[in-house]
Amino acid sequence: MQKFNRIVVFGVGLIGGSFALALKHGGCVREVIGVGRRRETLERAQALGIIDGIGSAASVASADLVLLAAPVAQTETLLRDIAIHLQPGTVVTDAGSTKSDVVLAARAALGDKIGQFIPGHPIAGREQNGPDAALPDLYQGKKVVLTALPENAKDCVTKVAIAWEQCGAIIHRLTAEEHDAVFAAVSHLPHLLAYALVDDIAARDNAERLFQYAASGFRDFTRIAGSSPEMWRDISLANRPALLAELDTYTAQLAHLRARLAASDGAGLEKIYGRAQAARQAWIAAIEAAEQARADEQGGD
Amino acid sequence: MQKFNRIVVFGVGLIGGSFALALKHGGCVREVIGVGRRRETLERAQALGIIDGIGSAASVASADLVLLAAPVAQTETLLRDIAIHLQPGTVVTDAGSTKSDVVLAARAALGDKIGQFIPGHPIAGREQNGPDAALPDLYQGKKVVLTALPENAKDCVTKVAIAWEQCGAIIHRLTAEEHDAVFAAVSHLPHLLAYALVDDIAARDNAERLFQYAASGFRDFTRIAGSSPEMWRDISLANRPALLAELDTYTAQLAHLRARLAASDGAGLEKIYGRAQAARQAWIAAIEAAEQARADEQGGD
Repeated sequence: MQKFNRIVVFGVGLIGGSFALALKHGGCVREVIGVGRRRETLERAQALGIIDGIGSAASVASADLVLLAAPVAQTETLLRDIAIHLQPGTVVTDAGSTKSDVVLAARAALGDKIGQFIPGHPIAGREQNGPDAALPDLYQGKKVVLTALPENAKDCVTKVAIAWEQCGAIIHRLTAEEHDAVFAAVSHLPHLLAYALVDDIAARDNAERLFQYAASGFRDFTRIAGSSPEMWRDISLANRPALLAELDTYTAQLAHLRARLAASDGAGLEKIYGRAQAARQAWIAAIEAAEQARADEQGGD
Repeated sequence: MQKFNRIVVFGVGLIGGSFALALKHGGCVREVIGVGRRRETLERAQALGIIDGIGSAASVASADLVLLAAPVAQTETLLRDIAIHLQPGTVVTDAGSTKSDVVLAARAALGDKIGQFIPGHPIAGREQNGPDAALPDLYQGKKVVLTALPENAKDCVTKVAIAWEQCGAIIHRLTAEEHDAVFAAVSHLPHLLAYALVDDIAARDNAERLFQYAASGFRDFTRIAGSSPEMWRDISLANRPALLAELDTYTAQLAHLRARLAASDGAGLEKIYGRAQAARQAWIAAIEAAEQARADEQGGD
């Protein structure tokens, strides 16, 4: 087993805290140092056993591995802060929801140390935030996408991959551009669409009546519009080109559907609805089969 | 308590079956007759105790109340079939998701008996269908919208309202036009948007990869795209003018958001996202308060 001597986590909330807890519970790390802007949060994380000590940017000098799990808008500043302290044996990774912008920021901040930075994105979360929301099994069975750079030595990538695997995650590899295109389609666009619908309705004179009759379908459709506006502002801007492209594709699809509806083309509408229903059912079936296979595997251990 | 002697239900699946079960469990009806296209379904409903007998259009002659809970596309045909059998003391209602088209169909089919038809829409459902999915408490605490006509005598509307109240439902009153505009915004449009997104993604060359990374946000957002394509084709066509208007409003909202994103206007995006988040949180809080009030009331009975 790969055992880390010292890990430094910037941001000790849900994402960074769960990473630290998973590795500590698995006995995979000797010491976790937390760094953050709010002393209170760091002290809370220490009281919860998420971190063993509170550090600063300089703490990375003696670290095997550094995880950036602070809000993504801070990435470049944090990388600039740690750059001068970074020793050759240390790998740095992050947990941001967008990757092309993080790579740009990392290149600017780290210069010729860029080879030590392996961009990552754990696909996990929950509604709550902060150290109290952190769970040792948050990443169990979840995907972590690593978007390694040409400059990354293979053993650096492996070190980060093993840390996430020790958290129970399944490693996927994409380029930063592939990652951003995929998540623009299946995550960033739906968030924008949900925000747009709720704001559209909330702005009307009869908003109260409209919300009064909104039922469970509307509730599920708009659940993601309950997400943090600041976080999604940052993600939208960070992944702007891919998100604009997705929005244009979707708008064209809506125009196509509108034409079918305007022409009272029932067969045309049913075809689109039917294809969507079939695709979604196949997707859900695949998820359920994968979950079952994982459960069977664990049962057989 | 208003007790019905004989109720005839066209369509003995989830909606019609749950209505019958609720009234029977409450002792509010002496006899329920089921009518439908498939003998097998009617026999199953009888075996489940949902109906007491199997009838035909002519059965309405001796009924106090008739509920149409068959697919909405059949409404006009069914009304034509029963028109000649309809006696002055009988009231007819329906459970269709759109109302203006039902009113048109009813006027055409019933002629001068239109006063006996009180259009309705129970806002309740579940994923399953058919008699086996019927539940006596499906309507408990749910809304039923009645869109009464100028021709409806007050006591006819009251009779239908009481039947739904005996099922545990809360009666709301709107005009057919108000109803269709409201549901175009909070139900029909979201369905169309969810179908559009899933079909858009399913049609791509890299659809498999995209679905692979779709997570719980996408799952909830697209849940309603798992709905019946035939049913939603019919609803889309039946509520075409209102749905087209909603689609145009939404497309304009997307264009507005796109302009903010294209201009990298973070403050503008955050404002829209923030308004949406606040509106949704207020809505969810209102739902939870109403649920709590209902629970308290029932606890105090």
